[in-house]
Amino acid sequence: MITGKNYIGNRLSGNGTKTYKTFNPSLHIENENEFIEASTEEINEAVFLASDAYIGYNQKSGKEKAAFLTAIADGILALGDILIQTYCSESGLPEGRAKGERGRTIGQLKAFAALLEEGSWVDATIDTAIPDRAPAPKPDLRKMSVPLGPVVVFGASNFPLAFSTAGGDTAAALAAGCPVIVKSHPMHAGTGELVASAIIKAAEATEMPNGVFSNLNSSGIEVGVQLVKHPQVKAVGFTGSIRGGRALFDLAAQRDEPIPVFAEMGSINPVIILPEALENRNFELAQTYAGSITVGSGQFCTNPGLLLGIKSAALSSFVTLLSEEIVKIEPSCMLHPNIIEAYEKNKQTAINQPGLVVAAEYGAEVSVNHARQAVVTVEGKTFLENTKLHHEVFGPFSMIVQCENAAQLQEIITNLEGQLTGTIISDNNEIAKYLNVIAALQNRVGRIIFNGVPTGVEVCPSMQHGGPYPASTDSRFTAVGVQSIKRWVRPFSFQDWPDQLLPNELKNANPLRILRFVNGNQNSDSI
Amino acid sequence: MITGKNYIGNRLSGNGTKTYKTFNPSLHIENENEFIEASTEEINEAVFLASDAYIGYNQKSGKEKAAFLTAIADGILALGDILIQTYCSESGLPEGRAKGERGRTIGQLKAFAALLEEGSWVDATIDTAIPDRAPAPKPDLRKMSVPLGPVVVFGASNFPLAFSTAGGDTAAALAAGCPVIVKSHPMHAGTGELVASAIIKAAEATEMPNGVFSNLNSSGIEVGVQLVKHPQVKAVGFTGSIRGGRALFDLAAQRDEPIPVFAEMGSINPVIILPEALENRNFELAQTYAGSITVGSGQFCTNPGLLLGIKSAALSSFVTLLSEEIVKIEPSCMLHPNIIEAYEKNKQTAINQPGLVVAAEYGAEVSVNHARQAVVTVEGKTFLENTKLHHEVFGPFSMIVQCENAAQLQEIITNLEGQLTGTIISDNNEIAKYLNVIAALQNRVGRIIFNGVPTGVEVCPSMQHGGPYPASTDSRFTAVGVQSIKRWVRPFSFQDWPDQLLPNELKNANPLRILRFVNGNQNSDSI
Repeated sequence: MITGKNYIGNRLSGNGTKTYKTFNPSLHIENENEFIEASTEEINEAVFLASDAYIGYNQKSGKEKAAFLTAIADGILALGDILIQTYCSESGLPEGRAKGERGRTIGQLKAFAALLEEGSWVDATIDTAIPDRAPAPKPDLRKMSVPLGPVVVFGASNFPLAFSTAGGDTAAALAAGCPVIVKSHPMHAGTGELVASAIIKAAEATEMPNGVFSNLNSSGIEVGVQLVKHPQVKAVGFTGSIRGGRALFDLAAQRDEPIPVFAEMGSINPVIILPEALENRNFELAQTYAGSITVGSGQFCTNPGLLLGIKSAALSSFVTLLSEEIVKIEPSCMLHPNIIEAYEKNKQTAINQPGLVVAAEYGAEVSVNHARQAVVTVEGKTFLENTKLHHEVFGPFSMIVQCENAAQLQEIITNLEGQLTGTIISDNNEIAKYLNVIAALQNRVGRIIFNGVPTGVEVCPSMQHGGPYPASTDSRFTAVGVQSIKRWVRPFSFQDWPDQLLPNELKNANPLRILRFVNGNQNSDSI
Repeated sequence: MITGKNYIGNRLSGNGTKTYKTFNPSLHIENENEFIEASTEEINEAVFLASDAYIGYNQKSGKEKAAFLTAIADGILALGDILIQTYCSESGLPEGRAKGERGRTIGQLKAFAALLEEGSWVDATIDTAIPDRAPAPKPDLRKMSVPLGPVVVFGASNFPLAFSTAGGDTAAALAAGCPVIVKSHPMHAGTGELVASAIIKAAEATEMPNGVFSNLNSSGIEVGVQLVKHPQVKAVGFTGSIRGGRALFDLAAQRDEPIPVFAEMGSINPVIILPEALENRNFELAQTYAGSITVGSGQFCTNPGLLLGIKSAALSSFVTLLSEEIVKIEPSCMLHPNIIEAYEKNKQTAINQPGLVVAAEYGAEVSVNHARQAVVTVEGKTFLENTKLHHEVFGPFSMIVQCENAAQLQEIITNLEGQLTGTIISDNNEIAKYLNVIAALQNRVGRIIFNGVPTGVEVCPSMQHGGPYPASTDSRFTAVGVQSIKRWVRPFSFQDWPDQLLPNELKNANPLRILRFVNGNQNSDSI
């Protein structure tokens, strides 16, 4: 049941005066439930509880925390159809996507649970004492990762499950040992509350301290701003626009005690199509990219918004083929009227730039809130000179840059803003002729793809999701995969600490049997 | 030979108009050499060269980079007596300290060389493809650490060798694959130039690209500000005051493209002396701490500036004993007249706070630029209420806080700013009664020490040097030990990338025989 209230720890609370409803973009009607925005008192109470829960949660073992995460995953599944229905009614996304995303969300939680069960992720490192070393004795030093403290997670509009209430950021932070306060995304507040209820149930069932999780409703920026400025908040996770992410980053940097913000933001995900590949696979590439540009109505952070080729008959024919293919695809519903409004506005802003040519735009009648996909072309020189053309148009839109030659292609890549991904489409050994272009591309992205599409982010340890600014605010971390836990921990050293008071991870006996670096050697032995 | 010029890559250059000299604090005279501050053109050229060198340096193997670091270490030793003499004349520190620090500097460079030789530090992680997975094929993904780009290192006044030109930050950044531009510390510009000459020689001998290292003279803040704001600079390392570090952090956060700043800043390193230990080891503790407070004239970031105890006859007697012991110690020379001036001023500011009592201050005649060590006492309540008393007094100074009871002690620790270290002095199992105090302390520091002193930072993998703000600007990293390399790298993923184009670290054959995570298992096998 959706109450419209906030979870302040395990207590439902709705003392605020500001209310709002979510919107069903497919039906173009407001949904029924009314949500009550968190008040300043509720925000402060949530942070106070989180701060208080921090030490108790920390004292839970990895296995206990793993049980908590597993119980969340099970609880989300147990919510059943109501979750899927609410998800669809608040996002306009189809049921298949909802179920797929639920599977991914559960999979992420279970992957972190497995990481905690195994336990070696803390990077335990031990150098034992040498009391008779000259000129000074060597102390015993033991280091492991410890949680930063309460983390604020901002739900993402485009992933109501996998990057929202119990999504990647929350799973990683809870796994790290950090209490989490979610600033619920207003577009899917009902989905958020349902998932929050599963988290709270799981916390109670596994005896986690009250305050380990809170879920705060908000319709504007105020709740988020108060959270990021709160002295007891120690880190922030965000997925969304460059404007939003940068605003939070700036707030956090201006605090008396600056805190880390990991914001995964915009990206246009350049795709370089080399001449021979264009020559040989023109039609296949046009079909593949028509699909990649429009999948999920283009509402993925890895959407290929920029295709680059060197001028040739094959490139011109690719433009024609892609134009033909992309308008064959049935438009789909976007997440919210505000999102489609922004899409149409940003598309027009791009199209109105001098030198832009519309190659294709879906022209037939579309249902309400359904996006008209478009492909535009531009000369390399124009793209280089007008950085407005580098801005992401969030939705089913892509720009084909027609470069004069390889040198211009390289210049464009070198001067591109940071990106989540870069893709090279190449046949045979053609790529070997473009090593400088590839080196430049590597310097601008977090992940490089060969003969594929950037959409579809595999959740696995070797995935890097993040990249040079503005793809993310800290390229040294990933937002996807279990390594994303590193965003929320810091190394901590114990010097000459009594064995019985050390955490189990660092005790001589190694009771958890985890892999440790001991005096330079990695093993799971006792000392 | 010291020329007073800048190294812009491998070229000596002195086009600027601003000059300055270093100062010998022991003799209280200016040193002979005149240094020419880098001009804007020279700064830009150094960054341009570094940016250009980045790709070429990146293509060097780990073994080649290791040879470069080893050659730097050998070159520093080969500088011989002139380095030691210059060091002493520019710092007032004794020859023994100079040689010890040289040993540490060389040791750090060699530790990074060993890390690169072995090669597994890049955290190679591989998930191989499952082409027939349903519903979607699993791509091949391979991840490793890659360097961020040109790094600017600010030399520290208090470690002219180990945290300056070829110190920890530089060694870590060069090991990571990042070209380095050093903003030379004006107090030891001659030492800096000598070390820079060894780095340049080593770069030439091992065929590193020109621009992999530059050394820029500066007497004020301008050179540093220009470097941090330069769009081609990708990260910053700093060791020094909170004011200086925060200013750089703010500049970097305000850039169009914010960049990471790792600043290791001030710390007062709380030491909690529990009642039984005080009772049993009063005199021994007083002797030990008199030494720790005054070692190196208190010019260490881990200097114990804050001692905390619970009121008792034993605490009063400890105050007396420490007061007696500390004035027995011969004052030593500080780094520069500006440093001793700041010390005397900050000491007076602290002493002038209401409720402060001077327990001891060295009163006899001292040589020029020699610091008069002092110990003061204050009530717990006063310390809690006046955060000015929490400020570091850089030099041989410590404050003893006399707490009413354990609850007040815990409150003080809970409300303390972030620190590099925290120390507990405890006898028998007394510590078990103070677990809440310890939990609070752990939350405020990067390293916790049992029955020792915070001074003396062991360089080893399990050392954490860094802590919650303002001890450092990013507690997720260490400034000491080989793990400090992580500050300057980011993870990078290759998706479905052709084997022959992958870096050796990720090739199927694993030609470097490094440890990798392959499909969840760690091994050094080929695939």
